[in-house]
Amino acid sequence: MELKKYKHDSLYSYTLGMAPTLELIQCRCEQVGKVYIHPNYTQKDERYNIFQLCESKNIPWEINKKVFDRLSMKENVFVLGMFYKYQAPVSAEKPHVVLVNPSNSGNLGTIIRTGLGFGFRDLVIIRPGVDPYDPKSIRSSMGALFHINLSFFDSFAAYRAQFPQHAVYPFMLKGSVPLDTILEKPQPPFSLVFGNEATGLPDEFLQYGQSIRIPQSQEIDSLNLSIAFGIAAYTFSQL
Amino acid sequence: MELKKYKHDSLYSYTLGMAPTLELIQCRCEQVGKVYIHPNYTQKDERYNIFQLCESKNIPWEINKKVFDRLSMKENVFVLGMFYKYQAPVSAEKPHVVLVNPSNSGNLGTIIRTGLGFGFRDLVIIRPGVDPYDPKSIRSSMGALFHINLSFFDSFAAYRAQFPQHAVYPFMLKGSVPLDTILEKPQPPFSLVFGNEATGLPDEFLQYGQSIRIPQSQEIDSLNLSIAFGIAAYTFSQL
Repeated sequence: MELKKYKHDSLYSYTLGMAPTLELIQCRCEQVGKVYIHPNYTQKDERYNIFQLCESKNIPWEINKKVFDRLSMKENVFVLGMFYKYQAPVSAEKPHVVLVNPSNSGNLGTIIRTGLGFGFRDLVIIRPGVDPYDPKSIRSSMGALFHINLSFFDSFAAYRAQFPQHAVYPFMLKGSVPLDTILEKPQPPFSLVFGNEATGLPDEFLQYGQSIRIPQSQEIDSLNLSIAFGIAAYTFSQL
Repeated sequence: MELKKYKHDSLYSYTLGMAPTLELIQCRCEQVGKVYIHPNYTQKDERYNIFQLCESKNIPWEINKKVFDRLSMKENVFVLGMFYKYQAPVSAEKPHVVLVNPSNSGNLGTIIRTGLGFGFRDLVIIRPGVDPYDPKSIRSSMGALFHINLSFFDSFAAYRAQFPQHAVYPFMLKGSVPLDTILEKPQPPFSLVFGNEATGLPDEFLQYGQSIRIPQSQEIDSLNLSIAFGIAAYTFSQL
């Protein structure tokens, strides 16, 4: 089988680089189809021998230059992990991060990684939105994607219908209370909700739960989405 | 004069796109050499007529396609503002953000914009480091660069020698106290200090001032630099 460039509807995707490939093998070993190794690969970190690791986990591996020429997006990568996409739906008992129509794979990856850093392991994406299985998203998550649960919905209403118990906190420039007035951790479950990079959340979200604004100067239009998320996730993790 | 591709030692640089060009004209009007407009430019936002704005500020403008072909880095931009680099050194009375050897222009731009959002207008870069006047940095700051003061030093020791009154807060994974234990705003002046994206701050910074760690899970190596900065800047802005 020749590995094809990733598309939305592909049944498989791939990690580019050693770090996300190690996370893939560690967290989702049973999903790995094959590990590809560039002929110019040299082991940099003695803790990780990719050949031994594959052997010990019964993962097929192959030395192959062409696959890197075709798929590595001009990045300087020497290890590539092909895996089959999987279902790992979010838990009804855990706090959720909900991204409404995220459009940038770099932001999405950073949010996944940052969320994991603050204990948020359940991510909901309201479509349309960028694909977390896109190799670019995986790369900017540095493989944190493989640690988390992930569900997709076509509308926020459909999400609410499935998780009516979650207390909703939409983050909006017009949010009715500043973040620093949230002093008590909501009893889980709760949902931190963020809008699209360019447009934020539509005004209708002011009606859902307790909308929050992050106090900021008028001199900038708004914070970058991943920065706003980082501040929110840190703050809620500290309550 | 034909505009040349930006280099470190250029005496001038340029903004790519309407938003940073408007910030340039608003904040650093006297530095603007010329505004270039693509022949396919159409006014999207009726608040901003770039021709009128240039006329009202006595800024020369020119319709020119070639300059975009040469300098726009494949981005879809229709307005470009050439400006002469300037000195705007940091203030001894204000809090400082100190970046030690930053290496990514996207992170630098995001940090400048985020800092402005939380009232930090004085940025110190310890060289070697990415150039804030690089059009890529300017673009990811969305023009926030033009609002702030900026100083460069060749070592942290040289910075300390010039600003010995600043209380130093190095942000490090090994930092001796967690961020949430900082409950009182230090009397300005103070300095929030961050290391390089890949390596962080060297251990010697544990000796300087009050080192701080941002509590985070072991499951990630570290937060992205701009995320760590955002959390720190927000927290200090709230004290």
